[in-house]
Amino acid sequence: MKNSKLCLAFLLAVFMAVLAFVGQAKESMDVNQVRKAIESGNLKFGEAVRQGNGAAIAALYTDDATLMPPNSEIIKGKPGIEAFWKGGLGMGIKDAVLTTVEVFGMGDLACEIGKYNLKIQPAGQAAFEDSGKYIVIWKKQADGSWKLHVDIWNTSLPAPK
Amino acid sequence: MKNSKLCLAFLLAVFMAVLAFVGQAKESMDVNQVRKAIESGNLKFGEAVRQGNGAAIAALYTDDATLMPPNSEIIKGKPGIEAFWKGGLGMGIKDAVLTTVEVFGMGDLACEIGKYNLKIQPAGQAAFEDSGKYIVIWKKQADGSWKLHVDIWNTSLPAPK
Repeated sequence: MKNSKLCLAFLLAVFMAVLAFVGQAKESMDVNQVRKAIESGNLKFGEAVRQGNGAAIAALYTDDATLMPPNSEIIKGKPGIEAFWKGGLGMGIKDAVLTTVEVFGMGDLACEIGKYNLKIQPAGQAAFEDSGKYIVIWKKQADGSWKLHVDIWNTSLPAPK
Repeated sequence: MKNSKLCLAFLLAVFMAVLAFVGQAKESMDVNQVRKAIESGNLKFGEAVRQGNGAAIAALYTDDATLMPPNSEIIKGKPGIEAFWKGGLGMGIKDAVLTTVEVFGMGDLACEIGKYNLKIQPAGQAAFEDSGKYIVIWKKQADGSWKLHVDIWNTSLPAPK
């Protein structure tokens, strides 16, 4: 009886140590994997912009995503997000380069700090560029892929006088 | 021997169930507690603005915080953040009301989606207001308090023509 209690206590201790180790290993592995998934998502975003494909941009967001564009109220949900990006493409956005600066987070959510560069060519007007920064909260999906769940940005260019 | 193995398996199962339950309870409890801490931090932010106290605003940020203001490059670290807010106070920011819309996250990081309203009274000019939205990533400190770790916002007002 004494032996079996000791054995039980020992097994429980080993079990907890394994749990703690697996938890830590999972966490540090995730950040690198998630960053790769995010960078691959950002390349798809740029590709969709160059193709002028608003539906393909919207498909990178979760169904209940939150878009927080400058000079706009908050936009909730995929139909509104698709309409927003179709509007942007219609106003002449031709390319978007998204560069990940930092990724952190845990589990099913990850926070990306990044920088953007947009090329804009409005019909019949001179082309110009906008560069700025953003935060995107990415959310892991049931199939293991990652989608944009919250998206906010602002320009780093000086304010117009 | 058969009995002690069965007993061990049963105890392990109970142990894992308790772990899972405690984990869930902790998570759902955290969000409410964290939201209260964030709302209290936002009230302190508004108070510091009304007092015109840039150092008190900066004290609400982590030492290595990231500030991402519109029309500015990314600002890293408390001295730059204090300089930014002192500049804002000098340009006439008199009040800031920060309203939490949503909080999510886990462990030591929490993501807040919120709305802001600023009252601005530049010297010798008419007062005006700005309203917009923000994401703040809050980070739990060693003493259990929460500080702003990443902060980005943009206006919801129409772009100037």
